[in-house]
Amino acid sequence: MISTTEKTNDEYNKTMLTDLYQLTMNAAYYDNNKDEMATFDLFVRTMPEEWGYYITAGVEEAVDYATNIKFTKSNLEYLASQNIFSKEYLEFLKDFKFEGEMYAIKEGTPITTNTPIIRVTAKRTQAQFLESTLLNIINYQTMIASKASRIVHAADGKDIVEFGLRRAQGEDAAIKGARATYIAGAVGTSNVAAGEKYGIPISGTQAHSYIMSFPTEIEAFRSYAKTFPNSSVLLIDTYNTLNGAKNAIIVAKELEENGHKLKGVRIDSGDLAENSKKVREMFDNNGLDYVKIVVSNDLNEKKIMMLNAEGAKIDAYGVGTEMITAKPVAAISGVYKIVEDNGGPKIKLSEGKKTYPGMKQVYRVETENGYNHDILAIDGEYTTLKPLLEKVVEDGHRISSRRELKAIREYCLKEVAKLPAYTKELSARPYELRISEKLEGLVDELTEKYGGGNYDVHQGV
Amino acid sequence: MISTTEKTNDEYNKTMLTDLYQLTMNAAYYDNNKDEMATFDLFVRTMPEEWGYYITAGVEEAVDYATNIKFTKSNLEYLASQNIFSKEYLEFLKDFKFEGEMYAIKEGTPITTNTPIIRVTAKRTQAQFLESTLLNIINYQTMIASKASRIVHAADGKDIVEFGLRRAQGEDAAIKGARATYIAGAVGTSNVAAGEKYGIPISGTQAHSYIMSFPTEIEAFRSYAKTFPNSSVLLIDTYNTLNGAKNAIIVAKELEENGHKLKGVRIDSGDLAENSKKVREMFDNNGLDYVKIVVSNDLNEKKIMMLNAEGAKIDAYGVGTEMITAKPVAAISGVYKIVEDNGGPKIKLSEGKKTYPGMKQVYRVETENGYNHDILAIDGEYTTLKPLLEKVVEDGHRISSRRELKAIREYCLKEVAKLPAYTKELSARPYELRISEKLEGLVDELTEKYGGGNYDVHQGV
Repeated sequence: MISTTEKTNDEYNKTMLTDLYQLTMNAAYYDNNKDEMATFDLFVRTMPEEWGYYITAGVEEAVDYATNIKFTKSNLEYLASQNIFSKEYLEFLKDFKFEGEMYAIKEGTPITTNTPIIRVTAKRTQAQFLESTLLNIINYQTMIASKASRIVHAADGKDIVEFGLRRAQGEDAAIKGARATYIAGAVGTSNVAAGEKYGIPISGTQAHSYIMSFPTEIEAFRSYAKTFPNSSVLLIDTYNTLNGAKNAIIVAKELEENGHKLKGVRIDSGDLAENSKKVREMFDNNGLDYVKIVVSNDLNEKKIMMLNAEGAKIDAYGVGTEMITAKPVAAISGVYKIVEDNGGPKIKLSEGKKTYPGMKQVYRVETENGYNHDILAIDGEYTTLKPLLEKVVEDGHRISSRRELKAIREYCLKEVAKLPAYTKELSARPYELRISEKLEGLVDELTEKYGGGNYDVHQGV
Repeated sequence: MISTTEKTNDEYNKTMLTDLYQLTMNAAYYDNNKDEMATFDLFVRTMPEEWGYYITAGVEEAVDYATNIKFTKSNLEYLASQNIFSKEYLEFLKDFKFEGEMYAIKEGTPITTNTPIIRVTAKRTQAQFLESTLLNIINYQTMIASKASRIVHAADGKDIVEFGLRRAQGEDAAIKGARATYIAGAVGTSNVAAGEKYGIPISGTQAHSYIMSFPTEIEAFRSYAKTFPNSSVLLIDTYNTLNGAKNAIIVAKELEENGHKLKGVRIDSGDLAENSKKVREMFDNNGLDYVKIVVSNDLNEKKIMMLNAEGAKIDAYGVGTEMITAKPVAAISGVYKIVEDNGGPKIKLSEGKKTYPGMKQVYRVETENGYNHDILAIDGEYTTLKPLLEKVVEDGHRISSRRELKAIREYCLKEVAKLPAYTKELSARPYELRISEKLEGLVDELTEKYGGGNYDVHQGV
C-alpha cells in the first residue's frame, strides 16, 4: 500500500467541478452517519443512431481526478459563504479525499452500451461524490473518440487530421477532444496546445486570408514556400482550384530546382472528388506524384465515405466541427449508478433506465474471426474469458501505470480491427452485449423481490 | 496610453491554444516583411433554424485573451522542438504580443447574423494570430447564451436553473457555459466551480441514489430535512410521484412543527404537466402553498413551452444537456475575416460566404415599440443612431472597464425585452440587419472591380 500522505497534484484538482447536490447529499450522509461502503457503475445507456461501438476515453484523467480530490482553503471559504453547510461538515471536508478503489476499462477499448467503463467502491460519501466530475470527463471524451473512430474507419486508410479548435465547445473540449481523436486514429491535430500537452503531431496549411494578403496567388505561394521550402501545403482554391493547382506546380518546380519539395496542396471548397482527381493528374503529369492532396470543408464520415466511393484522389482529410463536437449527437447518455451497498445489490427497473445490479465484470469473447460479443457478468463468474475491468485505484491511490498516448492509440486501432464488421458500417448495429446466466438470475431474483409486474421504480439523475 | 511594460496575466494566457497555421502564416508574414495594418471582423454567417437572434457572450474573455498573449520559455522550447520554425522567427515570438485595437459589442447584446461582434485592427501578424482562439471563445459562449435565451423566454417568467455539468463538453464548457446561461437569464447553476468562479447563485436538490440509500423514501426525506431544515428540495419520483408527494407533505408538516419550511420538491420523470398539477393541489390543500415545484428530465425550449401551454404548475425548470451543448445545433458558424488592409477594403463574393468589406459599425434603430432593426454601415456613417461596436482595447491594453456579471445579465434581459416579437417565437425569424447605402455602394464598387458576374472568389477557413 502506498503512503496515504502522498501530496495531491493541483494540476488534476477538479474537486469543485461538481454539482451542488453532490455536496448537499454528502453533507446529509455525513450528518446521518450513512457512510457504509457502496459500489457505483459508470456506463452509457444508449447508442446514438447508426453507431456501433464506443471507444473508452478520459479514463486516465478520471483516475487523476479521483486520486487528487482536495478542497483548498479558499474552496472551503467559498462554501462557508454560501450559508448552506454546518461548521462540522465543512471541517469534515478539510480532509475529504477519495480512499476507495476504482476499476476501469483501458482507454481506447471499443465497448457497447450498459458496459461499466468505471466501477467505484468506496464509502458512500466518497463514491457518490465522484459522479458529476467523472461523467463530465468520460461522456465528452468517449463520445469524441467514438465519433473519430467512425471517421477514421470511413477514411479507409487515408489520414484524418483534427481541425476543430475554432468550433470546439471551449478550451478543454478542444484539447481533450484532440487527444480523443488521436486515440481513435487521427494522425494529428492543428491544435498547438494539444500538441504541446500530449505530444500529438501538429500540422497545418494556410488560410485564404494568407493568399488574399498578396497581390497575386503565386506571390502568396512563393512567399510561403520561401519560408517553408520543405513543409508547405498550399491552399489552391482561393480563386479557382485548377488555376491554383497550376500556380502550385510552378512553385513546386521552382522548389525542386533548389533541392526542395512541395509537401502538399489543400482544397477547401467545390466538388472535392472531381477536383482532387484533376489536380492529382496535373501533378502526376508534371512528375510531382509526391505532392499530397489534403481536403477540408465541413467533412464527416458520410461525406468521406462518399468521396472514397467516387474515387477521389485524396491523401488526407482535415475534419473540424463534426468531429470535435460529435454534431448532431452533441452528448451521450453516460450515467453513474449505485449497484450495490450494505443492503445488497441494487436494481433499477424503470423502462429504458434499467440498471444491472451487483459488483460486475465485463468479459470479452474472441473467436478466430475477432471479437464476437461481450458478456456482462457477476465479477469472477468466468475464469477463462478476458475481463475488461482492471483495478486502477486502490486505497485512493493510482496503482495502474500511466500509459503513453501513442500506445493507447495503437491499442485502440488493434482492438477496433477485431470488432465485427456490422459494428463499423456507416449505419451500424451496436456491438453485442450478452447478460450472463448468474446476472440474469440476480436480475430475476431482485425483480421478483422489489419489482413485481408494476412496481414503478425510477432512477433519473 | 497605458504602459506597454504591463505584465501579462497567466490566468488569461491562451497563447498556445491556436491552430498551427496561425503560427506558420505568422512566420511567413514575418519572413516576407508582410506586416502592414489589417482589419478583421468576427461575425456569425448563419442563424440556426428557428432561432431569431444571438446573445453575444465571451467578449470579456476575448479581451483578456488578446491583451495577455505571451509565449513562455517552455512554449518556445516546444515550438523549437518541432523543427518547423527558424531561429530568427522564434526570437521574434519571444516578444510577440497584441499591440492593436479591438472594438466589440457588449456582452449580453442580442444581435443577428453578419454583425461584427469583434473588430480587430493591428499589424497583420497580430490581427491574424487572434483568429482561432477568439473563435473558440466566442462561438461556444455566444451559442450557449443564445440557446439559453430561447429557453428562458419559453419559461415565461418561471425560473431556469442550469444543470448540465455532466453532459457538458469538458470542464471549460461546463463553467463558461453556466456563465453564458446566467447572462441570458438563468437564475442559477448546479455547477459549484462556476458559482465559485463567477459568483453565480448555486442550487441543487438530491439524486435518486440518495433516496435509494435509505430503507424507505420517508426516511431519506427525513434525514435530508434534518440536515437542511430550511433548504431541502426533495426528489419525489423515485418510486411513485404521488406517494412521494404524500411523504414530502408529512415531512413538511414535521418541519413546520419545528419552525422550519420545506423549500421544494422535484419531479424528474413521467407526465410533468399532470403530476405538477396534482402535486400542487396536494400541497395547497395542506396549507403548503409556499413549497416550490421543480422539474427536470431532458428539457428544452419546446418541452417547456408545451408544459406552460398545458397549464403545468411548475416554479422552476432544471435544464441540462440541451442547454449546455445547444444540442442539436452543437456549433455555430462564427468566422474571422479580413475586411481591410493597406490594399483597401476586401470583399469575398462566393455564394453563402459573402463578407462585407471595410471598417464597419453596427447601428441599432429603436422606435417606440423597441428595437426595429440594425444597420451594417461604414464606421461613422450615422451620427444619430446608437453604435454597438465600442472600443475595448487600445495599443494592446484593455480600456473598457470589467463589467459585473450581474450587470451583464440585467442588461441582456432588458435588451432582449426590446426585440421584436417575431425574433422570440419558438419558430422565429432572424432579427433584421439592413445594409447601409454607403456600404452597399462599396460592395457594388468592389464587386465590379474584382467580381464581375462569374469570378469564383472563395473564402473558407
